[in-house]
Amino acid sequence: MSPEFELIAKFFTRTAKNAVLGVGDDCALIGVSPGYELAVSTDTLVVGTHFFPGADPEKLGHKALAVNLSDLAAMGAAPRFVMLALTLPSVDHDWLGAFSQGFFSLADRFGVELIGGDITQGPLSMTLTVFGEVAAGRALRRDGARHGDDIWVSGEVGSAALALRHLRGEICLDTKGFEACAERLHKPVPRIELGRALVGLASSAIDISDGLVADLTHICERSGLSANISWPSVPLAAHLVSMDLSMKMACALAGGDDYELCFTAPDVSRNDVERAGVSCAVPLTRIGAMCNGEPRAHVRDERGEEVAMKSAGFDHFTRQN
Amino acid sequence: MSPEFELIAKFFTRTAKNAVLGVGDDCALIGVSPGYELAVSTDTLVVGTHFFPGADPEKLGHKALAVNLSDLAAMGAAPRFVMLALTLPSVDHDWLGAFSQGFFSLADRFGVELIGGDITQGPLSMTLTVFGEVAAGRALRRDGARHGDDIWVSGEVGSAALALRHLRGEICLDTKGFEACAERLHKPVPRIELGRALVGLASSAIDISDGLVADLTHICERSGLSANISWPSVPLAAHLVSMDLSMKMACALAGGDDYELCFTAPDVSRNDVERAGVSCAVPLTRIGAMCNGEPRAHVRDERGEEVAMKSAGFDHFTRQN
Repeated sequence: MSPEFELIAKFFTRTAKNAVLGVGDDCALIGVSPGYELAVSTDTLVVGTHFFPGADPEKLGHKALAVNLSDLAAMGAAPRFVMLALTLPSVDHDWLGAFSQGFFSLADRFGVELIGGDITQGPLSMTLTVFGEVAAGRALRRDGARHGDDIWVSGEVGSAALALRHLRGEICLDTKGFEACAERLHKPVPRIELGRALVGLASSAIDISDGLVADLTHICERSGLSANISWPSVPLAAHLVSMDLSMKMACALAGGDDYELCFTAPDVSRNDVERAGVSCAVPLTRIGAMCNGEPRAHVRDERGEEVAMKSAGFDHFTRQN
Repeated sequence: MSPEFELIAKFFTRTAKNAVLGVGDDCALIGVSPGYELAVSTDTLVVGTHFFPGADPEKLGHKALAVNLSDLAAMGAAPRFVMLALTLPSVDHDWLGAFSQGFFSLADRFGVELIGGDITQGPLSMTLTVFGEVAAGRALRRDGARHGDDIWVSGEVGSAALALRHLRGEICLDTKGFEACAERLHKPVPRIELGRALVGLASSAIDISDGLVADLTHICERSGLSANISWPSVPLAAHLVSMDLSMKMACALAGGDDYELCFTAPDVSRNDVERAGVSCAVPLTRIGAMCNGEPRAHVRDERGEEVAMKSAGFDHFTRQN
């Protein structure tokens, strides 16, 4: 047996319970429940761009899956399957053991089945493709926001960006603070339950991977609307509160990797949205409103004045952040 | 607009005709026809492992899609959608233009829609995930071969391996010979029509990406059978005929990248299989039979004696080939 197949057998083969056919053939075979559509998303993580060389493989296995599942959350889809394409510089069984542990631990939590993939030799990177089901015509898209809709954000924003700044030596958090922020950076938990609870309530949604303003701008562009964010309403990460204003804004508005959901909903649905948050035990904060206008996001201070932003967010290509 | 989104908009966004939602949201949304299953496959191509640095981007765009579609062909699935995750060392519009041209030219030929993906910065590589439809329960799997089934192979084998040896300076083909073989190496055409025509006829199938013997061995393992290949029956690439025996065997039996189909079918279906080949204009050759026994492939000469093989095929990890 050759190494590639040995590695797949040792680390990545489990019985497929829901797939018609899982790992081990030319293709996997899956069915889709009647009346449902399949939501599909692909994300790549590359060493040096998305994570540091020497990154903890267990956390990497978690994060690679988490960022992909977050895209399903943003569509309101229920996770079902995942394909994993792994490029490795060399065969390291310890690394693979830890990576697969982080991966499967999160996969099991959300009932996601690994149905196939590829293992190749080259600079460390991983590309995952995730599959979720959502009732036909009910997915949370980016293009459904309407004039007057509230803008909501789940949880808090800025922790992941703080941890990244600490790792780069730009700031120095105390040990406890760093650990809390690093947990959000390395082991984000996709807002799957919330996304599903928002189906039928939210008019549009996106996950915050590139930064709140950058991601909300995608909703603006696709919905053909302007967004007004009230800066004092933005739920800051606890460890941001003591920072200066420019750090707060940089991390909370332009910091990527939070994997919270930003969504819009009609104002008449406020109570229902709040109930959805309570039922998922996720704090939800109303941070502004959509309105007719140029498709961009405006951040406004307590007096309603627009705040200038230096950098809108993380670009996966140019690594601005 | 940031470079990542600019690049997607410029090179990789087309109107989705069949997808519910294509490029531009957190996920793509697709439906599956009632009574059908979705066949899904992922393959990665990495610079230095699967192609040479400086490889022609137009050919690379073709090949990256072709090797993935070949997996759909091997399941008898009709291609529908593709996700493309591209990792690039830098932004080169000429390169991207040529790559997307090669990619879409093949995609259009088989009616495949690009529905999403990712563009990231890093060492050049591409991971594609393809989606095809096949009638529920009718896919050509690796585990369906039965004792006594014929073994068939489409087209000829060995051209791609010859071209690779020429490129490595191990042999020297004349210009015309090299061009013909290089076409097979760089621009393989997946046997989509043939795969679909074999649904209901073939008992198992695989595409020849790692080498005839290595790939047939997968059918042996999954079907729990032995395979006997009659060496004199193997359809050699035209430019192999004048080579010595060891080169012939190395290229035809252990040479990867041919992307022909190897499949098994009951002997009572011979006429139907031949008609399927004629209807698709693909030569089909019967090269042996499956039988009870240890799950491996035996190559036998004209006297029925087993021929020893040095290397079974290409391993994507160790680059034996």
